[in-house]
Amino acid sequence: MSNMREDALAMHREKQGKLTIQTKVVIENSEDLSLAYSPGVAEPCKEIEKDSNSAYTYTMKSNMVGVVTDGSAVLGLGNIGAQASLPVMEGKAVLFKNFAGVDAFPICLDTQDIDTVIQTVKLLEPSFGGINLEDIAAPNCFLIEEALKEQLDIPVFHDDQHGTAIVTLAGLFNALKLVGKKFESIKVVVNGAGAAGIAIIKLLAHFGVKNIILCDSKGAVYEGRSSGMNPMKEEVASQTNRNKETGDLKSVIRNADVFIGVSLGGLVSSDMIQSMNQDAIVFAMANPEPEIKPELAKQAGAAVIGTGRSDYPNQVNNVLAFPGIFRGALDVRASDINEDMKIAAVKAIANLIATEDLNQDYVIPNPFDKRVAPAVAQAVAEAAVASGVAKSQLNLDRITANINQSI
Amino acid sequence: MSNMREDALAMHREKQGKLTIQTKVVIENSEDLSLAYSPGVAEPCKEIEKDSNSAYTYTMKSNMVGVVTDGSAVLGLGNIGAQASLPVMEGKAVLFKNFAGVDAFPICLDTQDIDTVIQTVKLLEPSFGGINLEDIAAPNCFLIEEALKEQLDIPVFHDDQHGTAIVTLAGLFNALKLVGKKFESIKVVVNGAGAAGIAIIKLLAHFGVKNIILCDSKGAVYEGRSSGMNPMKEEVASQTNRNKETGDLKSVIRNADVFIGVSLGGLVSSDMIQSMNQDAIVFAMANPEPEIKPELAKQAGAAVIGTGRSDYPNQVNNVLAFPGIFRGALDVRASDINEDMKIAAVKAIANLIATEDLNQDYVIPNPFDKRVAPAVAQAVAEAAVASGVAKSQLNLDRITANINQSI
Repeated sequence: MSNMREDALAMHREKQGKLTIQTKVVIENSEDLSLAYSPGVAEPCKEIEKDSNSAYTYTMKSNMVGVVTDGSAVLGLGNIGAQASLPVMEGKAVLFKNFAGVDAFPICLDTQDIDTVIQTVKLLEPSFGGINLEDIAAPNCFLIEEALKEQLDIPVFHDDQHGTAIVTLAGLFNALKLVGKKFESIKVVVNGAGAAGIAIIKLLAHFGVKNIILCDSKGAVYEGRSSGMNPMKEEVASQTNRNKETGDLKSVIRNADVFIGVSLGGLVSSDMIQSMNQDAIVFAMANPEPEIKPELAKQAGAAVIGTGRSDYPNQVNNVLAFPGIFRGALDVRASDINEDMKIAAVKAIANLIATEDLNQDYVIPNPFDKRVAPAVAQAVAEAAVASGVAKSQLNLDRITANINQSI
Repeated sequence: MSNMREDALAMHREKQGKLTIQTKVVIENSEDLSLAYSPGVAEPCKEIEKDSNSAYTYTMKSNMVGVVTDGSAVLGLGNIGAQASLPVMEGKAVLFKNFAGVDAFPICLDTQDIDTVIQTVKLLEPSFGGINLEDIAAPNCFLIEEALKEQLDIPVFHDDQHGTAIVTLAGLFNALKLVGKKFESIKVVVNGAGAAGIAIIKLLAHFGVKNIILCDSKGAVYEGRSSGMNPMKEEVASQTNRNKETGDLKSVIRNADVFIGVSLGGLVSSDMIQSMNQDAIVFAMANPEPEIKPELAKQAGAAVIGTGRSDYPNQVNNVLAFPGIFRGALDVRASDINEDMKIAAVKAIANLIATEDLNQDYVIPNPFDKRVAPAVAQAVAEAAVASGVAKSQLNLDRITANINQSI
């Protein structure tokens, strides 16, 4: 770990950051200047003034995503502020480009006021074709995303919520296939009421799961619980845990088919896994220490185990989702990333593993599987068209060409 | 011109904008990912959290300028709004990169409210090492720049003001040398009270010019004039035109040594040039039609003539100034672009033309003269150090290396 520290600092120092601006035109003489700048540049300006959609034809907007943070919940580091979050946002932009040819630019906002973040991102809309919200703490992230989705004409996506939810559901989709259970009949316990936990619960419901229980540090969330609630948990309480199970995680995990941890390391014991139903599925995604070590979960009888770590099988890594999702959304000029598009992404990721190849150590594709981004992009673009949020036609060749721009 | 229109649209359409994000690292496996992203990226984050100056060491901030506009005064197109201004801002970013290796990113703000622009740029500060304000109408541009210079720790520069003023003064510096006059003894008439006009007047004063008269559409600006004034003109009135000359441009241009036009085409007649002093210097910078055609001004006896056009000698082109200025400011991590730095830029540009090479058609270097940006950058960096606004040491090798990064 000491080497990792030195290596990471040395790499960042040597490169002076991970992003640079590249120009698509070269200016070497008056003719170049007169096309790319004055007076020629007035022509695309006039076209866009007549029809703002022309911005997608003539400018970088068609492929540019803003990676927006307020620095309030950065990786496992917490509230380190906007300036200190910049290396993470640059890294995210590197992933966008490397995995799907999407241009992305870090916008680190020096405020954590909800209304100010919303207003600022709205004012920035002309430069971008999409907004990826990143590392914004709950519950602010929910309100910010909701307001921006409503107010902006470009797609807005909070990756810490939906990216994690989509990859988790893809893994669960395959794990259930493997153990022969159905979404409709399982009991799922989600531990952690942050951005990811809430989004996972919403997506589980879309996949038909009836029995979902959310746990936070005070135990099961249920309708009528009085302490430690917020509007988001109230909404979850009104739609899940219809048996009103109460008590701590240890109580409610009993007879669950699936445990999903987006909380803290070491919260789950072997006994708790043993109390789950036969063929238990355990996604213990706390980082760096999972809710239960995969070795222990396996000993306790879990059939399929996933984590957030690259050194165990079945890594739930958002990079499987967000690059392809934005690639697909941008390429059909989607005005939104809606539930249909998220569901399409889940299935695209899951279906990359053929049924005969599925096994307990392979329910989620490898993050470096080059089939993933194109498959996700295509599925998301098709879902955007089918659900009526696409402003331009589906063109699979363009998606492929754009992904191949990845550097 | 019809060809120009088609060519410019075709180029912008084919490239889908002029900028793209390039990554300095490639992510092909888990090791790459663990250095550029989680968990390694946490290390530079922690360093920046401890000392925000480390952002210059570990992130793109060290070389990233925000090109900020509200779309209110775009080229000669006027108030076309933020979205339609994007091709110009991309073009500006292309020039930053091509001429001085400066990364620049377009920020087109969907507001024209002064306080909102100020607040928004302030919130964006963590992502940038400098702010270039662009195409913001007067008088808002003055208030926005003043507030941001005061509130931000990074340099803020309104190019339409200071870029134009610096190149104009460089040309004037050489023109006066050619005709054997001194700043202290000349009478200068500046026609046009917009961003450029006001900035030119301030810089003229810094060079020791005593007799300056600003004209707007209502004629000479003087202390006590009651109509068509604003706070900026009041300030100018209190410091210029001490003889309180009144009347229209035709009256006050009489006996002037220098005419500087940043107004509208065709406002100046041959008679008016003939009424100026011997060896008159005429910078007629309205675009595309100058205040007086160079041929006419020459016939009327002007000794040195400059315009804003590339098809005449002595083009006043901001690209001679802003790339090198930001290169120099960034490379010594200047907290400001102050008057000393602007004056240093003027002299650096002017002095590139050796005295023996000076002639009436060559008082301003060619925009594509590759000596310009390094010379300006070095002079500006030295002036930043000498005036106490530099946070890091002068390193000429670094400036050269960074300029050579130009693509």
